[in-house]
Amino acid sequence: MLSYDIKQADSDSLYHFIYKCIKKDILSGALPADEKLPSKRPFATQLGVSVITVENAYAQLLTEGFIYTKPRMGFFVSAIDTSKVPGTNAGLNNIASQKQSREAQKSAPDTSGLEARKAPKKYLADFINNQANPESFPFSTWAKITRKVLCENQNELLVRSPYGGTLAVRKSIAKLLREFRNMNVDPDQIIMGAGTEYLYGLIVQLLGFDKKYGVEDPGYSNISKIYRKMNVVCNFIPMDESGVIVDQLEETCTDVIHISPSHHFPTGIVTPVSRRYELLSWASKSSNRFIVEDDYDSEFRMVGSPIPAMKNIDVMDKVIYINTFSKTLTSSARFSYMVLPKPLAKKFHDEFSFYACTISTMEQLTLSRFIDEGSFEKHINRMRNAYRSRRDALLQAISKSKLGKLVEIHEENAGLHFIMEVQTALTDEEFCKRAEEKGVRIGALSDYYTEATPSEHQFIINYSGLSEKTLGMALNVLYQVAQSNKVAN
Amino acid sequence: MLSYDIKQADSDSLYHFIYKCIKKDILSGALPADEKLPSKRPFATQLGVSVITVENAYAQLLTEGFIYTKPRMGFFVSAIDTSKVPGTNAGLNNIASQKQSREAQKSAPDTSGLEARKAPKKYLADFINNQANPESFPFSTWAKITRKVLCENQNELLVRSPYGGTLAVRKSIAKLLREFRNMNVDPDQIIMGAGTEYLYGLIVQLLGFDKKYGVEDPGYSNISKIYRKMNVVCNFIPMDESGVIVDQLEETCTDVIHISPSHHFPTGIVTPVSRRYELLSWASKSSNRFIVEDDYDSEFRMVGSPIPAMKNIDVMDKVIYINTFSKTLTSSARFSYMVLPKPLAKKFHDEFSFYACTISTMEQLTLSRFIDEGSFEKHINRMRNAYRSRRDALLQAISKSKLGKLVEIHEENAGLHFIMEVQTALTDEEFCKRAEEKGVRIGALSDYYTEATPSEHQFIINYSGLSEKTLGMALNVLYQVAQSNKVAN
Repeated sequence: MLSYDIKQADSDSLYHFIYKCIKKDILSGALPADEKLPSKRPFATQLGVSVITVENAYAQLLTEGFIYTKPRMGFFVSAIDTSKVPGTNAGLNNIASQKQSREAQKSAPDTSGLEARKAPKKYLADFINNQANPESFPFSTWAKITRKVLCENQNELLVRSPYGGTLAVRKSIAKLLREFRNMNVDPDQIIMGAGTEYLYGLIVQLLGFDKKYGVEDPGYSNISKIYRKMNVVCNFIPMDESGVIVDQLEETCTDVIHISPSHHFPTGIVTPVSRRYELLSWASKSSNRFIVEDDYDSEFRMVGSPIPAMKNIDVMDKVIYINTFSKTLTSSARFSYMVLPKPLAKKFHDEFSFYACTISTMEQLTLSRFIDEGSFEKHINRMRNAYRSRRDALLQAISKSKLGKLVEIHEENAGLHFIMEVQTALTDEEFCKRAEEKGVRIGALSDYYTEATPSEHQFIINYSGLSEKTLGMALNVLYQVAQSNKVAN
Repeated sequence: MLSYDIKQADSDSLYHFIYKCIKKDILSGALPADEKLPSKRPFATQLGVSVITVENAYAQLLTEGFIYTKPRMGFFVSAIDTSKVPGTNAGLNNIASQKQSREAQKSAPDTSGLEARKAPKKYLADFINNQANPESFPFSTWAKITRKVLCENQNELLVRSPYGGTLAVRKSIAKLLREFRNMNVDPDQIIMGAGTEYLYGLIVQLLGFDKKYGVEDPGYSNISKIYRKMNVVCNFIPMDESGVIVDQLEETCTDVIHISPSHHFPTGIVTPVSRRYELLSWASKSSNRFIVEDDYDSEFRMVGSPIPAMKNIDVMDKVIYINTFSKTLTSSARFSYMVLPKPLAKKFHDEFSFYACTISTMEQLTLSRFIDEGSFEKHINRMRNAYRSRRDALLQAISKSKLGKLVEIHEENAGLHFIMEVQTALTDEEFCKRAEEKGVRIGALSDYYTEATPSEHQFIINYSGLSEKTLGMALNVLYQVAQSNKVAN
């Protein structure tokens, strides 16, 4: 009969100890296939445990398939062939080594994780970082509304929201669009998602993997990356001073063009109304053609009224409008949405409504109240003023600095970045590299070109997360770098 | 010179009113292309507004491309060709009709939205609903931790988390897996995502659109839907009493098999260890082959220890383990994660780290604290006990009812559902239809088959969201339906 030393069970429960011993013997081959296991009662007596303990151990082995039962005959060892799995030494060594490494882990200092190894670098100025300033997030209001939602909306909170988001938050967004963007959309046209990246993926599923997608060149590189990761053709469409060139859409057989007509990143171009109509005319020529209007930072136009959305003149149902709260609230919350033309909204409803919405109901309800109670409007006005002051201070600091004489500023009235053209003998790469060595992180417009011929000496100045303390020093660094000799340094 | 009646500006700002009037005239053709606009000063005098008001109106028109400027000559109307966009009547009518419908909307009662039209039906019993009972969610603890996070983690809260989730929450999950599933994983192997559906999409991107995917038949239909929406081949693999049939994987040339070996939905099958090794052996034969282990409800095994995960014996790095907090917490929060084998984790890091994590940092940090402070373990133990009592009460109620004599119960020890086999002359479809007419919602096992031959007269009993009040009546309904004649009703 099998014999195990119950005293070794240690902190383990008795049934689990017996289960593990038998399992080990089965995996090691000590208990061969079809061997009968001892009857419960004598085995229990021998081990000095109760019959129920043995029963529980056998039941677990049975459930996991290590043993099988024959009616009125007892329990037998199953045939388990681990030999065909290379690297498996009867499973057992694996378990043992797991245990060892588990113990090793317990004693070792816990410094695992990619991030733990990467300490964030401190810069005099970081003109690449475009994350909102943490201080600007309306913490106390958000916390207050979160508490209210947790208290007052308990029943709604635990209901999974419909695929596009709860009706409450879609109504709030429709209201925002009406007030801020003069857009008249039905809440049913709105699909919320945890980030615009996720929505790009949904768009591919909705419009088709067989379509050819196009992105702006230059442009935000993640957009083309995502289309390519979704396994669709993605063309780079060159731009002139009005936006993407429509002839190039025809030439590349693009079906779906992804653009940001209200404020292009990184050039800052606003697509004029004539080009907008040209694009709509292009789209109207085939039922396969659509325009994705990525309106990522229209809330932050610094001068004049917001630029109207293309969606406003979309009488042919060709424009999918996308926006996000990443810039206006915080990118650490994942609030994005798209507005589908009605026929596409119907298609989405018919074919994709089995998908769960990717934003938690709690955060949806919090956002909805934040908008409905007027906090969003207040916040956005405060932010716009704060960014405008920051931009003005930065522009003034540049013009007063020595650097001022070497630069020209373009497209400074929209969004949270502008372009600074610098007189320098250095290549863009060399300029950015030397600046970074001296503590100033800056990116060149030319980095954002893929196939089109880039403009040189134009640098992107993001100022949403900029600190003003070390700004003077940073501008001086850029001046020295711009003046520096090609070979020197 | 142009003439507009400034008194009509109403609540609009003056500059915006002038801007709109000119825009309207341009779009209607009243102001033809290349027409010179009046000089600012005399125009301002004529309208009775300040020069700056006219300047602002012109600036907005310029930015949007309705007019252009010639140095020292003034402003001219742009050529805007709207005629090629079918349905566009110079854009203007569109704006007017938008305004009308906006006003109509203001006065109409706001009953838009798909959901508003669908009132949820009340049932005596709903055996299809598998959402957790709202009362079971630990509201006060969750609210307390949320408040703490909002107070104490403000700086972390506004940093967008790395692609896989913040290190804190990945460490918490690694700890859970160690304690509950005896799994030893590095936090870097964990990728968090807003729902398992989203993770399935990521898996396709990671393993390839050219691979052939396989799902269990019968099975949860959304899984195959998602693979097909991702535009990949998805085979239905028939099952025997141990799980998917390995020969069928070979025959269908499946590369990636998606299974739930610890508790299959809907049959309840636990894949025995011998079949697990067979599957691993199958996977080891090609570098393209992988197993997706969907461990959706292993926390709720009612009797005995949890079934070990296949990931535990995955020495060849072939198993992608997926789990979710939808069942254990609430499906209205979107917390899911996958554990990648180390080589795939490296590939993910190299190729997909540009993706933002789809769960907000706030919810990640709340979940992390909820786990670390021991609340998750307490909650899961309480839930398991509650579900066990509910299951026991239900089983007892069935056996005591008249229905008891007509049924046999299968697979009642795991997860939050079991199978009830019913003696009846009705087809499954007829049975479910008649039950629903009498207020009992129930689904048949045969509904979950796609290509394989289904077992008849087996019904799925989900009890996680069941109310006990009307249970007796519901069982009586099922008894009557089971006894009812084929033609009668």
